[in-house]
Amino acid sequence: MTGKPFGFELRATDRATSARVGVFSTPHGLVQTPAFMPVGTQGTVKGLTSDAVRSTGAQMILANTYHLALRPGEDVIRELGGLHRFSGWDGPILTDSGGFQMFSLAQNTRVSEAGAEFRSHIDGRSMMLTPERAVEIQEALGSDVAMVLDHVVPLPADSAKIEDACRRTVRWAARCKLAGKRSDQALFGIVQGGLERTWRIWCAERLVELDFPGYAIGGLSVGEAPADMYRTLEFTCPLLPEDRPRYLMGVGRPEDLLAAIRRGIDLFDCVMPTRNGRNALAFTDAGPVRLRNLIHQRDPSPLESACPCLACRHSRGYLRHLFMADEMLGPILVTHHNLTYYQRLVERTRQAIIAGRFDEFHQERLLGWTKESSSSASREAT
Amino acid sequence: MTGKPFGFELRATDRATSARVGVFSTPHGLVQTPAFMPVGTQGTVKGLTSDAVRSTGAQMILANTYHLALRPGEDVIRELGGLHRFSGWDGPILTDSGGFQMFSLAQNTRVSEAGAEFRSHIDGRSMMLTPERAVEIQEALGSDVAMVLDHVVPLPADSAKIEDACRRTVRWAARCKLAGKRSDQALFGIVQGGLERTWRIWCAERLVELDFPGYAIGGLSVGEAPADMYRTLEFTCPLLPEDRPRYLMGVGRPEDLLAAIRRGIDLFDCVMPTRNGRNALAFTDAGPVRLRNLIHQRDPSPLESACPCLACRHSRGYLRHLFMADEMLGPILVTHHNLTYYQRLVERTRQAIIAGRFDEFHQERLLGWTKESSSSASREAT
Repeated sequence: MTGKPFGFELRATDRATSARVGVFSTPHGLVQTPAFMPVGTQGTVKGLTSDAVRSTGAQMILANTYHLALRPGEDVIRELGGLHRFSGWDGPILTDSGGFQMFSLAQNTRVSEAGAEFRSHIDGRSMMLTPERAVEIQEALGSDVAMVLDHVVPLPADSAKIEDACRRTVRWAARCKLAGKRSDQALFGIVQGGLERTWRIWCAERLVELDFPGYAIGGLSVGEAPADMYRTLEFTCPLLPEDRPRYLMGVGRPEDLLAAIRRGIDLFDCVMPTRNGRNALAFTDAGPVRLRNLIHQRDPSPLESACPCLACRHSRGYLRHLFMADEMLGPILVTHHNLTYYQRLVERTRQAIIAGRFDEFHQERLLGWTKESSSSASREAT
Repeated sequence: MTGKPFGFELRATDRATSARVGVFSTPHGLVQTPAFMPVGTQGTVKGLTSDAVRSTGAQMILANTYHLALRPGEDVIRELGGLHRFSGWDGPILTDSGGFQMFSLAQNTRVSEAGAEFRSHIDGRSMMLTPERAVEIQEALGSDVAMVLDHVVPLPADSAKIEDACRRTVRWAARCKLAGKRSDQALFGIVQGGLERTWRIWCAERLVELDFPGYAIGGLSVGEAPADMYRTLEFTCPLLPEDRPRYLMGVGRPEDLLAAIRRGIDLFDCVMPTRNGRNALAFTDAGPVRLRNLIHQRDPSPLESACPCLACRHSRGYLRHLFMADEMLGPILVTHHNLTYYQRLVERTRQAIIAGRFDEFHQERLLGWTKESSSSASREAT
């Protein structure tokens, strides 16, 4: 490992919007931003080999601290050579910290100043996740980017609750920073604060004082309207240093990606393309396609004729058959398509920003997505 | 299509046994025999893309008339360009006739001289499969090899029942032959007769009189002991013309393949490698490996170091994790390994026959399989 394994270099900035193109350097390679990270919660992007993930155009993937610590345990992964070797993904990996599980597994969680105590969703055993422990696990996993432990609350929430979680997030961020030992792992801070400008500003300023190599915006896409999320990004992004990557956690739909890129976001992760793919929903430039629908039964055309993915070698009729017959290949192929779609979307977005036509590209995409959504919705209702 | 799209050429015959190496020509390419056909019941080998199936070394695959006629319907597949185009598998395909489902779905089936009436296992609708209809469906699917409709009964069965099914199988075979119209599809006859020498001989002789381009031995691996199956092959194979491929339907374990090849069989299909692969059982030269076992948790070694499959790029520890975490990638990878194992087994068998050392190879394999089975069984019991 050289002395400076991380870097973030801006390559282009849009004039009309805050969209930007950059390159994020990590010990396991470069990431062109804006970038979308497929979610590999348990050390595998569901249904795809590493080679297949790579072939979608993905450069960096995400894995989950909470899940991997429970099963197989970070000691097992460390013993088997760390997460890269274990999973066979040799590109950059980001691990989330487990903070999001305080939201998604709220019924099984008790948060105190020390940390979060989970009852395992697998076997009910207790698991204490302190900021120090979250860092320790992530160092054992050996991800390129580790996330601080943050306190995520569902929205809507009252101001006192948001303030409390926000202040705790900052205290925990400082503890995580103190705990970090690996020079080949970058630790990102996470801005919390719900939809409240006051608390987002306060949180961002404190985290910037702590000087992280990258910043995430957390606690969004947890129940609020898209417009509220966009507004929050609009006042939060400018608070973060221009020369560090900005990561919007757990977002989102294709339209959310473009709306967030427009406001200055560089990195994304979300289960949408994979989870929806497993459930027969395919993303296309003409909007989402529900493959179980009868209209696809005898359709010889692929999902998208210009798409290089594995699914688009087949007819929609075949893809529909796979889902109707409950065959694994359906989820596999449409996962591959959706991830390829997301990667092509960020790739085309980067090109548009560089070419100075991001806004035009954004409008084109929105138009395409809306057209099909309405026409296919009406067709599907008949 | 040329005038003579099918052929079977013997390349080598073992001196000490009845094992033989040949090449079976079909409109979609050559098949080196002895060959193992992965099972793609519903137009997909479960969990694998066509490319992945091809990469195991498979040259020909099997699909099911009964299942595809029910869903999506053979008219849909014909409309979408036939089974090759539909499934994306451009190599040879053999379709079974639905006869086996009279055994496997016996509770839903009524057999009469006209044919078999099924209550659909999907929605309970009635489906009548006559010999003529079985051929019609297979012609619509466009497989390279179609199978006659046969009457399969579970073993043990009394002699009267076996005689009845055997005589019906011959009458149906003649009706299938009359019904066949496609010159680019070969129709194979199926020898029935349970474990009874008299009826196997009678059935084989009648079918040979009907002159099929290939012959299957059916109604085995349906409840009898392996030794009974081997004995039946021993007196049935010599009844079949040497210059036609011999196909043992639905068999089997690796040891069954070698025992049957020894007795003159050329073609196999079986769900063992795929079904077991989905259930965490991997075949190796050292015997089967049960990947859920705790002994694999921290094991950095692959299933087999010389295996070129996708699973063997990973540690046994990772494969175990995938199954314990209920991740699709576990079934996908071990299916790929098992199919690769079966293909390597028949490939090595062909080489051994050509090199005049089949018996030696057979003994070596048996020794390896038995050793590990007992040692791993005892380890797994601790």
